[in-house]
Amino acid sequence: MAIDIPEIKRVLIGKPFPTSQEIHERLDKVRALAVFASDPISSNAYATEAIMSVIIVLGSGALRLTLPLAIGVAALVLMVVFSYIQTILHYPDGGGAYTVAKDNLGTLPSLLAGGALLTDYILTVSVSVSAGVRALTSAVPEVFEYRVAIALLAIVLITWVNLRGVRESGTIFALPTYAFVGGVLLTIGIGMARYMGLFGMTPLPSFEETVPATTSLVGFAYIWLLLRAFAGGCTALTGIEAISNGVKAFKPPESHNAAKTMVAMGAIAMSLFIGITFLSTRMHLVPVEHGESILSQMTRQITGDGILYYWVQIFTALILFLAANTGYQDFPRLSSFLAKDGFMPRWMQNRGDRLVYSSGIVVLAVISSIIVIAFHADEIAMLPLYALGVMLSFTLSQAGMSRLMGKVGRLKPGETAYTENTQIHYERTWRWKQALNVVGSITTGVVFIILVATKFVDGAWLVALAIPLLVAMFNVIHKHYQKVAHTLSTEDFSEDELVDVANVAIVPIADVHRGTLRALQYAKLLSTDVRAVCVATTPEIHERIERRWARFPKLTAGIELVIIDYDYRDVLTPLVDYVDRVNRLEFDEQLVTIVIPEFVPEDVLAQVLHNQTANILRRELRNREDVIIIDVPYHIPAVVESNEAKAEAAEPEAAEGEAV
Amino acid sequence: MAIDIPEIKRVLIGKPFPTSQEIHERLDKVRALAVFASDPISSNAYATEAIMSVIIVLGSGALRLTLPLAIGVAALVLMVVFSYIQTILHYPDGGGAYTVAKDNLGTLPSLLAGGALLTDYILTVSVSVSAGVRALTSAVPEVFEYRVAIALLAIVLITWVNLRGVRESGTIFALPTYAFVGGVLLTIGIGMARYMGLFGMTPLPSFEETVPATTSLVGFAYIWLLLRAFAGGCTALTGIEAISNGVKAFKPPESHNAAKTMVAMGAIAMSLFIGITFLSTRMHLVPVEHGESILSQMTRQITGDGILYYWVQIFTALILFLAANTGYQDFPRLSSFLAKDGFMPRWMQNRGDRLVYSSGIVVLAVISSIIVIAFHADEIAMLPLYALGVMLSFTLSQAGMSRLMGKVGRLKPGETAYTENTQIHYERTWRWKQALNVVGSITTGVVFIILVATKFVDGAWLVALAIPLLVAMFNVIHKHYQKVAHTLSTEDFSEDELVDVANVAIVPIADVHRGTLRALQYAKLLSTDVRAVCVATTPEIHERIERRWARFPKLTAGIELVIIDYDYRDVLTPLVDYVDRVNRLEFDEQLVTIVIPEFVPEDVLAQVLHNQTANILRRELRNREDVIIIDVPYHIPAVVESNEAKAEAAEPEAAEGEAV
Repeated sequence: MAIDIPEIKRVLIGKPFPTSQEIHERLDKVRALAVFASDPISSNAYATEAIMSVIIVLGSGALRLTLPLAIGVAALVLMVVFSYIQTILHYPDGGGAYTVAKDNLGTLPSLLAGGALLTDYILTVSVSVSAGVRALTSAVPEVFEYRVAIALLAIVLITWVNLRGVRESGTIFALPTYAFVGGVLLTIGIGMARYMGLFGMTPLPSFEETVPATTSLVGFAYIWLLLRAFAGGCTALTGIEAISNGVKAFKPPESHNAAKTMVAMGAIAMSLFIGITFLSTRMHLVPVEHGESILSQMTRQITGDGILYYWVQIFTALILFLAANTGYQDFPRLSSFLAKDGFMPRWMQNRGDRLVYSSGIVVLAVISSIIVIAFHADEIAMLPLYALGVMLSFTLSQAGMSRLMGKVGRLKPGETAYTENTQIHYERTWRWKQALNVVGSITTGVVFIILVATKFVDGAWLVALAIPLLVAMFNVIHKHYQKVAHTLSTEDFSEDELVDVANVAIVPIADVHRGTLRALQYAKLLSTDVRAVCVATTPEIHERIERRWARFPKLTAGIELVIIDYDYRDVLTPLVDYVDRVNRLEFDEQLVTIVIPEFVPEDVLAQVLHNQTANILRRELRNREDVIIIDVPYHIPAVVESNEAKAEAAEPEAAEGEAV
Repeated sequence: MAIDIPEIKRVLIGKPFPTSQEIHERLDKVRALAVFASDPISSNAYATEAIMSVIIVLGSGALRLTLPLAIGVAALVLMVVFSYIQTILHYPDGGGAYTVAKDNLGTLPSLLAGGALLTDYILTVSVSVSAGVRALTSAVPEVFEYRVAIALLAIVLITWVNLRGVRESGTIFALPTYAFVGGVLLTIGIGMARYMGLFGMTPLPSFEETVPATTSLVGFAYIWLLLRAFAGGCTALTGIEAISNGVKAFKPPESHNAAKTMVAMGAIAMSLFIGITFLSTRMHLVPVEHGESILSQMTRQITGDGILYYWVQIFTALILFLAANTGYQDFPRLSSFLAKDGFMPRWMQNRGDRLVYSSGIVVLAVISSIIVIAFHADEIAMLPLYALGVMLSFTLSQAGMSRLMGKVGRLKPGETAYTENTQIHYERTWRWKQALNVVGSITTGVVFIILVATKFVDGAWLVALAIPLLVAMFNVIHKHYQKVAHTLSTEDFSEDELVDVANVAIVPIADVHRGTLRALQYAKLLSTDVRAVCVATTPEIHERIERRWARFPKLTAGIELVIIDYDYRDVLTPLVDYVDRVNRLEFDEQLVTIVIPEFVPEDVLAQVLHNQTANILRRELRNREDVIIIDVPYHIPAVVESNEAKAEAAEPEAAEGEAV
């Protein structure tokens, strides 16, 4: 009958890992690439198309602009990758943009970076799960009307795997990631071979289907359109920073492994992006709204309808779902950094049974589910909100790194110095690195402004609103913790200043029975001034309590029975009033003790059969200063030998069954 | 910022009434009729049509059968009214079928009657609110898609008015009830005058539109159809018993006022029913599925499209909504009877600020809302479930009354006797009354079987399932209360048998700060064997707690510091294990005291910023036998003079802010 929650948890999550075995849960480079890079790699499923679908309004002739724009995006990616490799090497404890900004730019920029990244990680989950559902519903249109439910189910599944631990999720998620990368790389390889006419293969088909321009733009409007196309391509940058936050998840030597993984990720993502863009523009493929995706068109033209085509299709859908995993890796980790510094609830730094930040994982799942529901799992509608946060964090991170390089530059050869969060050494190449960081920061800053400007009315305003609100929330939380720390501080504490405890024990009772007698007995141990307080709402209750009280002369000896006659039904008010009066008038500035006889039924369901007076009274009194609350539970045994026999024996008068 | 819930409640519900003023909240006959009779009176809006819409399949010619069937229904009503007048006079404390069955037939029949009536009261609310919404959406079809929301809003409104007190709801609901009765009676009067050619009025139009029979039935099938039509008309009987449960709501002399009101109700309901049926069959009106109702057709033909027509239409819609009020009167009252006898949660007998059974009202609102949502506010779909319960309760109630009359018959003239629930005197006419009750019981029993049989597959099976389930629930609840009564009973209690309290106080601490120091200080008052228990999940925590402990030599003198090194993050398990070990190994069969330092933040929102360890620990330990729990709350003051200054002063080390 009873549900064994620990057992269910054990089966679902697995057996707890000891803290000391944390090192065995670290990721090797192969798993780490799968875990952290699923988002940037999955971007290749749509990044080329994102550029093309903007340019197409100028007609199919203008699509040749896609490649130069993609090369621009790729250059930006390289710059960011380089910058983050520097970050990883300089901040081996991880933390990415938040830590870098905190260390070099101050609290507000670091909170901005933190808020921006958290926003983006949430959107990563919502967007990628919805994109995965779209891929699925394109294949099986019958399930379209269940898309929100499917997306939520996917979130539940990914949440579950992540709660089982980093290593386990790494193992599970490795296969689809590498299968996708392998499939697309093979397709690109065959495509290039056919394009160059190697091995005597048939040359690639080239489509000269002309789509007329739906508009003709000149001057500023033309540049604006190119900027929007570029901004569209920049979704390829999301998730690049993921590794920098998760350095601590790598096997030692952490930062070197992380840096190498970063290089591998950059290389893979760029090969895919440039390869897909090059081939699809050479073949003059044209994006079709609500139609077949560019990646699918390209694969089909290159490989035919064979097994490779279906391979790429299936793993595209899977990796779109799995891109969510990047959010699952970094949201909880970044939240734990913020929590450690007192900007988010402290419990977000607690690690669960499997050494992952379980609370962060659950919070992420809940918020991203809400967004999926609000947007009806339509990732197209979410895209304008996406990639903004990440671009802001790039800007701040690189600005911070350029400052750090300035500090490095001030060191003499061989010298070492400490910043608040890390240790720096002299580096010969600091000037080059700094220059690159400055250029990178300015470029990503400009892209950020372009993103906000081009997508503002489509939804970017939501993010522009959310980030400052998050920062404000961080500050409110921080102030609260400071206040708590100050109040609890023992800095100026003298051992004599503790408040006195008054020699009084107040026992609220509803009736005289075994439960209340036990509480009275306990109260007599505490104090020589015990007062049993009973609220009588009818004359019958008044009379009954007096009669029953008289039956236990030995136990009630020395206890004052206070009966409060009350003409309303709400017994809580007079009880609390009595306590307040005693507290204020008789024992001002002292701790008053309340002994609450509490009736504990055998199971939770049975609780609904009883007044919750004891619970409500405790909650009410807890808000009072100078009150100590003692619960004296009285249990009803779960097993009764014979209900019938007992029922006969039950004294009808004692049938009230309420402790207070 | 803080929401003042008592203040909001005061505004919504009104100021509390003292218990002693209950008598002023009683109803006079005019208000009582409006409150209790809205359901049976409102049935006239559809009862005639319910008969006709079954017969019409035999063609419009067969509609002449409507009047005899209606007269049959009316005869049943008169019999039931007579029976209930007897009940009211014999059971002046109210209780209707439940009390009568309990007193004369035993527990199981009384629970059957109770379960049947509760089911029907819930359906009264769902059906009548949905019917009111249908009347509204017929007039304003644009709001059709919001019908569930409108129905729920209506439930909220009726709930609110009922929570404000019986008298107030009586006053508010009187107007529409009397306006409906007056309007329809006037229409019938004009119709009869025109029918009889009085005052030289134009004779009534007579429509000879022939609807062909869609089926031709003979033998059993024909009788089955007539039975179904009769069963449809029996919805007119719902709510007739309402007054019998609510005798205590009347001004004294309660039973005489209630009986008079019952007579008035029967007279009004029957005049309307027979009047409407007579006139509409004389005019050969034909029911139109999804079209204009019979009542509306009749009113329009008699009065034209004038003000009286709209009057009747508006108040028909209103009284359909208000029929729900009958459920609101009787469900809470009947629940309180059942709760008093220990068959429903005891808190259902508590009366709220305005002396109504608030919990019952809220429970009714919630359950009927769920049914409205489940049936999409479609009362046609709910009708097969309806009127079953009431018919079963009529059967049981009259069977009980015939038994009571048997007891009366055994008395000698002038003699008085007591049954369990009432007092009986000799009555000369007992034989007649008994005969009528037997006939009534058999008739309503047969009708009950007809109702179940004719509507079983359409949904009556749900009720046939719900009633036994309710009875089973009543029994489970009753067993629980008996067990509680037995356990708490002081019958065989000796003052010496109370469990000893062990000389030990365990104080779980997470850190050494003002909060935990206060708890330790309190624990020292209780026992000479105080143990501060801290779970160290890392070596740093172990070292830190020892260092801080040493800073307060005076206060910690004589206290044993127990540090448990633990390689998992879940600190609760080792704490509970420690308590269990101490309890079992050192102080078996004694009460062990746990002092929990609990951190109380200034507001509820701030609670989410803290681990709920203290709360979870308390909940866990409450389930253990022989444990006393002491909460030593430590408050964070809400107002801090200057956050900036304090933040500077805060000792970083004490920043954990968790009491346990």
